[in-house]
Amino acid sequence: MPPITSMEKAMEDKILLAHGSGGKLMHDLIQSFLSDIGNPMLDKMDDAAVFDVKGKLAFTTDSYTVQPLFFPGGDIGKLSVCGTVNDIAMSGAKPLYLSLAFIIEEGLPVAELKKILGSIKKAAAEAGVKIVTGDTKVVNKGCADKIFINTAGVGIVPDGVNISAANARPGDKVILSGNIGDHGIAVLSQREGLKFTSPIPSDCAPLNGLAAEMLKATKNIRCMRDPTRGGLSTTLNDFAESSKVGINVAEGQIPIAKAVLAACELLGLDPLYIANEGKLVVVVPAKDAAAVLAAMKKHKYGKNACIIGEVTAEHPGRVVMKTALGASRIIDMPVGELLPRIC
Amino acid sequence: MPPITSMEKAMEDKILLAHGSGGKLMHDLIQSFLSDIGNPMLDKMDDAAVFDVKGKLAFTTDSYTVQPLFFPGGDIGKLSVCGTVNDIAMSGAKPLYLSLAFIIEEGLPVAELKKILGSIKKAAAEAGVKIVTGDTKVVNKGCADKIFINTAGVGIVPDGVNISAANARPGDKVILSGNIGDHGIAVLSQREGLKFTSPIPSDCAPLNGLAAEMLKATKNIRCMRDPTRGGLSTTLNDFAESSKVGINVAEGQIPIAKAVLAACELLGLDPLYIANEGKLVVVVPAKDAAAVLAAMKKHKYGKNACIIGEVTAEHPGRVVMKTALGASRIIDMPVGELLPRIC
Repeated sequence: MPPITSMEKAMEDKILLAHGSGGKLMHDLIQSFLSDIGNPMLDKMDDAAVFDVKGKLAFTTDSYTVQPLFFPGGDIGKLSVCGTVNDIAMSGAKPLYLSLAFIIEEGLPVAELKKILGSIKKAAAEAGVKIVTGDTKVVNKGCADKIFINTAGVGIVPDGVNISAANARPGDKVILSGNIGDHGIAVLSQREGLKFTSPIPSDCAPLNGLAAEMLKATKNIRCMRDPTRGGLSTTLNDFAESSKVGINVAEGQIPIAKAVLAACELLGLDPLYIANEGKLVVVVPAKDAAAVLAAMKKHKYGKNACIIGEVTAEHPGRVVMKTALGASRIIDMPVGELLPRIC
Repeated sequence: MPPITSMEKAMEDKILLAHGSGGKLMHDLIQSFLSDIGNPMLDKMDDAAVFDVKGKLAFTTDSYTVQPLFFPGGDIGKLSVCGTVNDIAMSGAKPLYLSLAFIIEEGLPVAELKKILGSIKKAAAEAGVKIVTGDTKVVNKGCADKIFINTAGVGIVPDGVNISAANARPGDKVILSGNIGDHGIAVLSQREGLKFTSPIPSDCAPLNGLAAEMLKATKNIRCMRDPTRGGLSTTLNDFAESSKVGINVAEGQIPIAKAVLAACELLGLDPLYIANEGKLVVVVPAKDAAAVLAAMKKHKYGKNACIIGEVTAEHPGRVVMKTALGASRIIDMPVGELLPRIC
């Protein structure tokens, strides 16, 4: 048996199975690092956080398995806060509280966990959400891939807001908040060790501030979603299917960074199917489109916003793109997995 | 490229990375199986579920990594519903809605996933909770261990209920709802291939019904918790530390099944530290103890309930056990991990 000092050293460097026991070792580690985002609810360390609410509650969950853990513009910690904050915000809700659950592979360097916790803290602060309850499990080496994170979240939907993928109507306008494809290409480049002349950072960002500004412009937002896995094409297809309407988009209107377009051409990928983590697509009545677009352009996460298309009664359930050459093509759902473990 | 039919066959048998893409394949699979627990919120498939609430909300999360997936008396599906339902119920809340997030290793037999989904459905029905939002990620073979599940949950705390590990006061009684150690020994036996003359099933069960009956007897429940990881000793130590009181328990009063005791002796384990998944420990004022105990004994999950000790102003932060021989010993928190991946 090694002397206590070297055991303590080992515990400082690597996550051990013991960190997952009743949670004491891990609790101390996480608590020490999150201390300044600590709050009376988390500090109580009861099995559930308890808080007062009144109204329409939005509730969502996502697990994050991105590989690699760290990539230009973000990491799994930032992603796990922004992704869930965005899912809440896409219902028009103000995100309030998150849960945070880790599944950690034995042997994860504590330095990496601390870096991830730092990103979680920073992202939660920017989004204005509190982490109120959590869980940590440690599994044997080889039984997970470094770390998986699940966050669930709750938020309050303001009165008069009713957003759903099923609400689009013919005549509505479709607005995209900015360039597509950044997140997927950033993660893929990092994973495959690709070097581009201009590095492509992920767009990973909390969108609740942007969504709140848009709701100030009008409460008549019909559909809103962040095009993550499956990209813009999947989101538009979801809207078309759920609302039983057609959607027409114009290829020339969809903003894509030159570096992303070049990377997609090189890799044989279609940017319409690449994941984003800091963009949203919104369907609004035509009469409100200008006001919503103006509100978006004023926000740092909506500077490149533009109208990309409109909702039609024709071809219900289908998304049709007018190409730069004037032809029309149907934009389908992706069938298989284009880029696994992108979030 | 294989013909479509054999590709379809492969997809029926094993989970593929494609099941995790935008979620369509997996969505169809899960939706088809959960169809009769489906509900308007889940069916909408929006990013967040939205529902009306008013009052004190309890919010909790847990990830489940139990190994093996199937064990006597339960499986990871039943566990992932009961565990989170119980965490909500331990705050005195009525559990209402769960989220359900899977991380699946590529290659998991679809039959195993279906069996797990069946258990989830059954446990959710017994507990009276709805699954309203979910997520599925599939990771490459070797990057997870078959399946990990996260559930988060929300519930409403009735007016006048204020339960916390920090609320125990000297003079209060400590009541345990039944035999300890069953879950941990059941999982361990299955994992290690141990055969006992009497098989030991896990006690995994939703405790919200029992907790509701107890709250009908009195709203003066001070502390309530299900002694899972770390066992009864950890729960009692949490109460003593958070409430800054001492707790005295009598060894002879703690119910343990003979088969569990025999297994513990054989394996060199202390049942006080073994996980339970269908038991609760409660601290109540002495004047309410008889009424709470009577309510517990009437419920199927509290038949073996008994008073196991009391709260004292002496030795704050410590749990002291009077042994069968009349000696006193301090019951500490476990330091390391006794039994990894028990839940």
